[in-house]
Amino acid sequence: MKKNIKVFAPATISNVGCGFDTIGFAIDEPGDIVSLKLRTDGKVRITTITGDKGVLPTDIKKNTATVAILELLKSYKDKSIGVDVEIRKKMPIGSGLGSSAASSVAAVYGMNILLDNYFSEKDILDFAIKGESIASGAIHADNVAPSLMGGFVLIREYNPLEIIKLPVPKNLYCTVIYPHIVIETKKARKLIKKQIPIVSARKHFGNIGSLVSALYEEDIDLLGRTIHDEISEPARAKLIPNFFDIKKAALDTGAYGCSISGSGPSIFAFSKSKSVAVRIGKAMQEVTTKNGIKSNIYISKINKVGPRVIK
Amino acid sequence: MKKNIKVFAPATISNVGCGFDTIGFAIDEPGDIVSLKLRTDGKVRITTITGDKGVLPTDIKKNTATVAILELLKSYKDKSIGVDVEIRKKMPIGSGLGSSAASSVAAVYGMNILLDNYFSEKDILDFAIKGESIASGAIHADNVAPSLMGGFVLIREYNPLEIIKLPVPKNLYCTVIYPHIVIETKKARKLIKKQIPIVSARKHFGNIGSLVSALYEEDIDLLGRTIHDEISEPARAKLIPNFFDIKKAALDTGAYGCSISGSGPSIFAFSKSKSVAVRIGKAMQEVTTKNGIKSNIYISKINKVGPRVIK
Repeated sequence: MKKNIKVFAPATISNVGCGFDTIGFAIDEPGDIVSLKLRTDGKVRITTITGDKGVLPTDIKKNTATVAILELLKSYKDKSIGVDVEIRKKMPIGSGLGSSAASSVAAVYGMNILLDNYFSEKDILDFAIKGESIASGAIHADNVAPSLMGGFVLIREYNPLEIIKLPVPKNLYCTVIYPHIVIETKKARKLIKKQIPIVSARKHFGNIGSLVSALYEEDIDLLGRTIHDEISEPARAKLIPNFFDIKKAALDTGAYGCSISGSGPSIFAFSKSKSVAVRIGKAMQEVTTKNGIKSNIYISKINKVGPRVIK
Repeated sequence: MKKNIKVFAPATISNVGCGFDTIGFAIDEPGDIVSLKLRTDGKVRITTITGDKGVLPTDIKKNTATVAILELLKSYKDKSIGVDVEIRKKMPIGSGLGSSAASSVAAVYGMNILLDNYFSEKDILDFAIKGESIASGAIHADNVAPSLMGGFVLIREYNPLEIIKLPVPKNLYCTVIYPHIVIETKKARKLIKKQIPIVSARKHFGNIGSLVSALYEEDIDLLGRTIHDEISEPARAKLIPNFFDIKKAALDTGAYGCSISGSGPSIFAFSKSKSVAVRIGKAMQEVTTKNGIKSNIYISKINKVGPRVIK
């Protein structure tokens, strides 16, 4: 039995314009790294957290990674198994890029390898979702599922959970800008109205169906047209300074669709080549810089594999 | 130039459980037959209507077939072109099976062949939609588009209209029961609330995306799970006596999903073989017969071609 492992799990874009709480995908960069070292005394400890600027909880019952591991160990036969956990945040927290989901996924994915793949992918998904719910305050799978499974995923049903994996078009690039402002997921969720007009719902129906078709057909033009949000974006855009200018800059530079990732403040845009993806990033960043807001840009293809072990 | 033509256009199932105003598909049977005979005096006349029990308007400005033809002729170069129209209703009116759409489609599809395909499919779609809107009181494409294009279609956007054609799984059968009760489309539409809970919308998002995936994957089990309606079915079920008993009979007999077609009262159910489709029809009809309501049963594969010329 292997005793140590280091796992990278990818950041994820959720909502994806039309797919409120339903669609998410993984990107190659950024992501989180979790290192695990098995113990034989049943104890779970967080030994180190780096890259979090001191904001993540070190209490194992409050940290997403260890909450997910504790869930896993509850279902494991050998109660003497414990683990030392080192978390290296390689991505911004509270960015709308599924930071807590990535830590949670890396942790349980790694644990399962150390336990000789005792659990199924479905089990691992459940454990990671429970871990992530500590951070977001609710059960959501639209970051955890793509981080674990890679590619585009669709959540058909939450109760019981049913995830549909969707194909990834070749040559689909994603540009992400993370403006350095703070949005709390819980607060951002409260902005979503409990009722939506049927005419808005119908637009989402048409776009979600078309987004799925676009992925199967590798039709990035169509994919771009489906990135339309009448639920989350109108409510959350006001939390992101210059959101509409950033979006316009992306679309004017050749993006196929642009919207808020999850609760924001990160914003994603699709394109068909790396050079255009880079140009979109520059155009978006010009807007934030001009307005005195620092930002990170991430350029990435779609991550198709989910977490990976780092040698 | 050909002077006469006889065209069959298929009935259609719209809404399809999760796809309110968004998804529709064509079935091989029933359908409408429209015969056309060109005139050179610019006049449009309805010569005969059969099978309608006298309920369809003979005024060319009120009949869906001729309204669609008048729209077409408005855009045609030669103003001396006219036509004699014979409509043979081969399907029930007010059944929720897109009766007015089928007449409208048959009429303009035939006219276009007589005019040596002067118009594009997109033009024909627009004309037929205008014809159909006379009957339904609103612009809807979810019957007209599948009747014209065949197969499953998805309406991404109404303004401007964008239709996505979806694949048809092999061995997908559809059973339809038309109970002989009257539901007015306009009245049935008024039962739909203007706002829907976001939790219901989310269920529809997951199911519509999954329905499209199921069609591409030819996964009829998944297709069946997506046939779930929180918008139209709860409101309209009360207009159809014993609806839930009919649905239960279908599902108990092996149907993969069962719901109301359009505004009802017709009810559709999917299955994987003709023998099961027949059995489902018998089980549904037993319920209506027991309750003293006459009904028709239609067993059909998915119509992939739309209208066809009858020799």
